[in-house]
Amino acid sequence: MMLRTLTALLAGAAFLAVPQIASADELLDEAKDYFKPIPSMVPAVKDNAVTSDKIELGKMLFFDPRLSSSALISCNTCHNLGMGGDDNLETSIGHGWQKGPRNAPTVLNAVFNIAQFWDGRAEDLKAQAKGPVQAGVEMASTPARVEETLKSMPAYVEAFEKAFPGEDAPVSFDNMARAIEAFEATLITPYSRFDQYLEGNEKVLSDEEKAGLKLFMDTGCVSCHAGTNIGGEGYYSFGVIEQPGADILPENDKGRFAVTKTADEEYVFRAGPLRNIELTAPYFHSGKVWNLEQAVAIMSTSQLGEDLNDDQIKKITAFLKTLTGEQPKVEYPILPVENANTPKPEAMVAQ
Amino acid sequence: MMLRTLTALLAGAAFLAVPQIASADELLDEAKDYFKPIPSMVPAVKDNAVTSDKIELGKMLFFDPRLSSSALISCNTCHNLGMGGDDNLETSIGHGWQKGPRNAPTVLNAVFNIAQFWDGRAEDLKAQAKGPVQAGVEMASTPARVEETLKSMPAYVEAFEKAFPGEDAPVSFDNMARAIEAFEATLITPYSRFDQYLEGNEKVLSDEEKAGLKLFMDTGCVSCHAGTNIGGEGYYSFGVIEQPGADILPENDKGRFAVTKTADEEYVFRAGPLRNIELTAPYFHSGKVWNLEQAVAIMSTSQLGEDLNDDQIKKITAFLKTLTGEQPKVEYPILPVENANTPKPEAMVAQ
Repeated sequence: MMLRTLTALLAGAAFLAVPQIASADELLDEAKDYFKPIPSMVPAVKDNAVTSDKIELGKMLFFDPRLSSSALISCNTCHNLGMGGDDNLETSIGHGWQKGPRNAPTVLNAVFNIAQFWDGRAEDLKAQAKGPVQAGVEMASTPARVEETLKSMPAYVEAFEKAFPGEDAPVSFDNMARAIEAFEATLITPYSRFDQYLEGNEKVLSDEEKAGLKLFMDTGCVSCHAGTNIGGEGYYSFGVIEQPGADILPENDKGRFAVTKTADEEYVFRAGPLRNIELTAPYFHSGKVWNLEQAVAIMSTSQLGEDLNDDQIKKITAFLKTLTGEQPKVEYPILPVENANTPKPEAMVAQ
Repeated sequence: MMLRTLTALLAGAAFLAVPQIASADELLDEAKDYFKPIPSMVPAVKDNAVTSDKIELGKMLFFDPRLSSSALISCNTCHNLGMGGDDNLETSIGHGWQKGPRNAPTVLNAVFNIAQFWDGRAEDLKAQAKGPVQAGVEMASTPARVEETLKSMPAYVEAFEKAFPGEDAPVSFDNMARAIEAFEATLITPYSRFDQYLEGNEKVLSDEEKAGLKLFMDTGCVSCHAGTNIGGEGYYSFGVIEQPGADILPENDKGRFAVTKTADEEYVFRAGPLRNIELTAPYFHSGKVWNLEQAVAIMSTSQLGEDLNDDQIKKITAFLKTLTGEQPKVEYPILPVENANTPKPEAMVAQ
């Protein structure tokens, strides 16, 4: 009894003397309830064993501009691994210098998202990978052209045979997508300062960053932006409380409504995953906002009905910058050489 | 005397018994007179010390699309290190999906060329690097815009300070070019099978390839294509004997004439360096010929007045494929993150 009292007294004294530590403990516990660190190991992927042969093939495909009909645009053009896994453009430039309809999402940690694209229309990365290759405003190719291209090059045929052993027709558009998915599963960014914090290193965040984390949870940002990717795990109306202007939320892009045809999914989008967010301006599906503090302010008004003051916005932004992880180290692949059987680039006619 | 006779006799006997070896020796000796292997070490560059800090900075710049006004096109877009150091297009696609005037030359081993561009208008790689960045049909930027872009990012400023220590204004358009030149000096491809042969390993080439090498020297290809880069060391009229058709030699591109304004330099171009030639189709400054055997046939007719038969063309082509060296291993660089002071990509208006 005596001992317990003493312990309580000491604990109380400790609390009074250094409140920062005690409150930090609580903050970490609360954060652990909401967030999960990026694993340091490549995650498993549904229906697609991530083998090293598949990863190597997927890397070649990811960087190969010959998946586009112009032979100019590769996955890496819009999902640049040196620039946070996106292109830092409002919306991407594609085939014929056309402008895409939405801001290119980052490929980094995309494997942890509930589904792919801003409207979640692709169940996973292998489904996603087939989209831009065929989209007329992006790579403007076809499954037949891609297969003809890949089959023409013996080094690709061999790589597909190794990556998909025992299959009758290993070189296929579907297997292209599977290999790309396997490579993309390796594009994860562990060891952010926030992840180090979640693992128990409380000193790695500054007081300002911790205050930002607390605000992020207390004001409700966390209700859409949680989990491993601090977002990317659910669909929400852009403008729960108040719709932003048409410059930021263009009227003709009704988001998930186009996928589900459900009236109450008008202007519904997948919550943006916030990992490496400082690397991936401009923001939102429209790509209209270049400044992260401004993006935080818009979100708080439109989604939470909270008018945060400048100091609060600054703190939340400081927290968001702790989400930048170790960027993937990738050796630039040497691609198979084309030959007479490889389809030629399409006539280069400006559109 | 007796001894000499015996030696001569033995030599003669050896020649009769195994003619291949004796003639191979002669072939190697002759080849050594004309060609030099790619060194395994990065070569020195005039007026530009190739330091590791400069190489690292140059690599970032080489892959950074923000050197273009669209923020889409990097050096690597047209000089793709995974595809033989060029884009494998007839002529490059540039800003606004415009088509460039000439086929993009490879950046690999370019440091060994006498001068840069098809017409040699840039003395060296640091002069060359400034061209495409400013060309309206390529990256469409300006020195001022590039400097503003680079100065806006603290990580670039730091990298320039390290690469150009003690300079008052290290971040400059000129230093951008110097850093790119330093990186490009590392883009050499040693250890081709032909280089192994030149180093004395005679077994590394097949009989067909050796026959091709012999034809390459005997028919006179070697008079323009010699040295380290098997070309790239002098200027010659395209059509010494007979001009090819206007599809291959467009009339309005008068080559080096535009540089020197000397009438006898009409349709004069730098002899193409033939290193890694199997990786860099399509061929010629017009990029009109995709097939290497066809390119050999055109060259022999137009430059040598020789109508080689199919077997000879096949052998020369087999020899040319021994010029493929070890491709550079490059870790894809993580680029500095832009901020509010970084110029935004130019309005994406199709041209």
